Amino acid sequence: MTRTSTLIAAAALLASLSFGAHAQSAAERSIQYRQGIMKAQAWHLGNIAAQVKGDKPYNKDDFARSAIFLSQLLQMPWDGYGPGTDKGAPTRAKAEIWTDDAKFKSAGENATKAAAALAQAAAGGNMDQIKGAFGATAKACAACHDDFRSK
Amino acid sequence: MTRTSTLIAAAALLASLSFGAHAQSAAERSIQYRQGIMKAQAWHLGNIAAQVKGDKPYNKDDFARSAIFLSQLLQMPWDGYGPGTDKGAPTRAKAEIWTDDAKFKSAGENATKAAAALAQAAAGGNMDQIKGAFGATAKACAACHDDFRSK
Repeated sequence: MTRTSTLIAAAALLASLSFGAHAQSAAERSIQYRQGIMKAQAWHLGNIAAQVKGDKPYNKDDFARSAIFLSQLLQMPWDGYGPGTDKGAPTRAKAEIWTDDAKFKSAGENATKAAAALAQAAAGGNMDQIKGAFGATAKACAACHDDFRSK
Repeated sequence: MTRTSTLIAAAALLASLSFGAHAQSAAERSIQYRQGIMKAQAWHLGNIAAQVKGDKPYNKDDFARSAIFLSQLLQMPWDGYGPGTDKGAPTRAKAEIWTDDAKFKSAGENATKAAAALAQAAAGGNMDQIKGAFGATAKACAACHDDFRSK
C-alpha cells in the first residue's frame, strides 16, 4: 500500500475502533453519535449554569469558551437522526422526531440560534445580557426535550 | 422565583438529567464528556474516511461540513482530562496523560492543528490536498491514541 492508502486504512480502523469492539449497525452508531454530542452539550451548559447561578466564580474567558463550544455542538446532533435511527440502541428519542420533521427541525433551529446568541453575549461579558441569553437557551433546549425526548 | 431564576434552575436540572438518573461524580461526568466528544469525532472521521476511500460518493459540502465539525470537536476533549479524572468510570485513558502533561498537550495540539488543516483543504475541494491533510490527521489521531489510550 502507498503511504496515503495505509493512513486511510488506519483512519477507517480508528473510526470503527472508537465505537467499541463489536460490529455496530449504522443506527447504533448514529444514536451513540447524537448522545455523545448531547453529553458534551450538557457538560458545557453545566459549566455555564454554575457560573450564572454563582456556584462557581464567573470567569469571562472560561465562560465564553464553553458558550462557543456549546454553540458549535448545537449544530451537530441533527445528522444523527437519519431514517431508521429510531431504534438500534437504547434511546429516549420520541417517534415524533421522524413523524413531525418540520416541528423537530424548527425546535432544533431555535436551540441552535439561542446558543449562538448566548456565545455572542458571553463574548461581550455583560452579565445581564448573558442571563437573558442563557435563559432563552435553556428554554429552547427544554422545549425540544419536552416534545421529542421521553422522560 | 423570577422568570430568569426559574430558567436557570431548569437549565441546571437539564444539564444534570442529561448525565443519567443516578448522581454522578465530577470525574464520571468528565470521562463521559470526553468519550462523547471522541465518539462524535469518530463519526465525522468515519464519514470523511468513507469518502476518501470511495466507499461513499464524495460530496464536497457534506465532506467540508464533517471536516469543520471534526476540527471543532478536536478542540473540545481536553477539558475532560482534569486532575482526578483518571478513574471514576470505565476509561482507556493511560496514566501518562497525567504524568506526562507536556507530551499529552503536544499530541493533542498536533491532532487539533491537523484537523484544522483538513477543514481548510476540505473547503477548497482539491482531493489531492484533502488526501494529504486527511492522512496527516489520521496519523496525529493515531499517535495520540497509541501513547495515551489502552488497547
